[in-house]
Amino acid sequence: MKKYAVGADIGGTTVKLGLFTTEGDLLEKWEIPTRTEDNGKNIFPDIAKSVGEVLEHRGLTTNDLEGVGLDVPGPVLPDGTVNRSVNIGWGVIKAAEIMSAEMGGIRTTVLNDANAAALGEMWKGAGVGHKDVCMITLGTGVGGGIIVDGKIVPGAFGAGGEIGHITINPNEKTQCTCGKYGCLEQYTSGRGIAKLCQMRLADSNEPSSLRDIDNPTAKEIYAEAGKGDAFALSLVDEVSSQLAMAMSFVSGVTDPDVFVIGGGVSKNGPIVTEHIEKFFREYAFHASKDAKIVLAKLGNDAGIYGAVRALL
Amino acid sequence: MKKYAVGADIGGTTVKLGLFTTEGDLLEKWEIPTRTEDNGKNIFPDIAKSVGEVLEHRGLTTNDLEGVGLDVPGPVLPDGTVNRSVNIGWGVIKAAEIMSAEMGGIRTTVLNDANAAALGEMWKGAGVGHKDVCMITLGTGVGGGIIVDGKIVPGAFGAGGEIGHITINPNEKTQCTCGKYGCLEQYTSGRGIAKLCQMRLADSNEPSSLRDIDNPTAKEIYAEAGKGDAFALSLVDEVSSQLAMAMSFVSGVTDPDVFVIGGGVSKNGPIVTEHIEKFFREYAFHASKDAKIVLAKLGNDAGIYGAVRALL
Repeated sequence: MKKYAVGADIGGTTVKLGLFTTEGDLLEKWEIPTRTEDNGKNIFPDIAKSVGEVLEHRGLTTNDLEGVGLDVPGPVLPDGTVNRSVNIGWGVIKAAEIMSAEMGGIRTTVLNDANAAALGEMWKGAGVGHKDVCMITLGTGVGGGIIVDGKIVPGAFGAGGEIGHITINPNEKTQCTCGKYGCLEQYTSGRGIAKLCQMRLADSNEPSSLRDIDNPTAKEIYAEAGKGDAFALSLVDEVSSQLAMAMSFVSGVTDPDVFVIGGGVSKNGPIVTEHIEKFFREYAFHASKDAKIVLAKLGNDAGIYGAVRALL
Repeated sequence: MKKYAVGADIGGTTVKLGLFTTEGDLLEKWEIPTRTEDNGKNIFPDIAKSVGEVLEHRGLTTNDLEGVGLDVPGPVLPDGTVNRSVNIGWGVIKAAEIMSAEMGGIRTTVLNDANAAALGEMWKGAGVGHKDVCMITLGTGVGGGIIVDGKIVPGAFGAGGEIGHITINPNEKTQCTCGKYGCLEQYTSGRGIAKLCQMRLADSNEPSSLRDIDNPTAKEIYAEAGKGDAFALSLVDEVSSQLAMAMSFVSGVTDPDVFVIGGGVSKNGPIVTEHIEKFFREYAFHASKDAKIVLAKLGNDAGIYGAVRALL
């Protein structure tokens, strides 16, 4: 095992990069813009060039690297082929092969971004010490990553851990971006929580401090709930109940011993996990109901940690 | 790898035994009674004695065996400890260790019975050629086994694949045997289907050939549906819809490429998978909706096949 490795978390706007020791110490992190034009063809040489500069600055070369781990917003097949990533402009592209060629044949792995975050949290974050993990990322959408016995479950069709598109309300009339109706993401993403709030405010006359805020965000809803606003608390309960129900489904399939809750919504702190926990203990099968439910620790760095972990 | 192996599927009434080649050919199968008295302490020596006789008859000894694989109705921890099995009288018992000691230190593995069936079907049954499998057993209860990348997912609490206790109807008022309300098993087990039929018959005046049968069984319901009885068909649709919904949850977690439907209910033939398929294609996330849905092939032998496969 060589001493260093690089993780590259490729997003729609920036590529987050990290130089790590293969023990998992993050030595340096930096960002470069993601050039999505021309079907994102510049992304690979841009990463190679930027990594080369950082290595040179430290008197290192690609020979000192165990490899480069990439993570991308999109489905990834077992051979490192990315099966379209709208956000970064790629169609079906042999990402592992191309990245390796750009860096002199170095080892390269590619993960889906939610899976990378799960692996990162297991390695150096909130999932340390666990081998059966479910990570749920509550951001603009809802992502998920499933780890069984220390390994990511990519899924036969690249859709392992697509928890955001589990049907939670078969009676929903509004369509999810995926084309289905009633997906978890429709209710528990940042956007979903804000929308639920609009609906519930319009449906009732219950007084609430949220009525003084123009289009309350998920952050504002959790903040008002934290201050004790009963209406905001009922919204948090509704969201938490739906998340807990989906988590109980995960328990019935892979039975993890820890759920890591990440993404923007998780930044509202312990109120997030406390409310989820209350419902999860009720919904889960008796054997699984003591699973831990914890907040993610690595924030936006989870992806680069996981991308490197995948190399080891 | 030695040439032979034995599988022992320990049930509440009988132990099914099989002598296999390690290539997976079943050379001989037989049964002995399960002596559940005295906390089932005779089960191990009974198996050892019976296997010894069969081996002797063929001029073989335990030295010719790669090992003995057991499967039991109950949760099994990774070290081969059975965490209580009501049906066979065991409390918490180090089954692998005890069985091995009874047979001169031979290698022994222990699996949960639903997991063994899944592994058996992957190895030599309806899941051949697949590495990401979900098996659902529709019997008196509803069992499940999840395979990821060729390996059983036992779960951190021994509850991996406990699909029968996924909540499918949060509004249910009748309690499941597990203590929760609205589990899949309550609607789609043999018993559940028969009960649903009673309720639906009582709730409507719709004519049906099922009204001429005293307490129709799941088998009779599927049979009448097969003959075109509209009421029976609506019951089959209701059951299939709930199964398909639970299967879509599995797809959102481990994303298998094949679902194998086994157990007594599956013996009603293609009508079972055809109706499930119709709903699954509608409920599953787009990437996963082409997963195959097939009937189990090994019947009651799936357990012994899987128990042996676990040794290899």
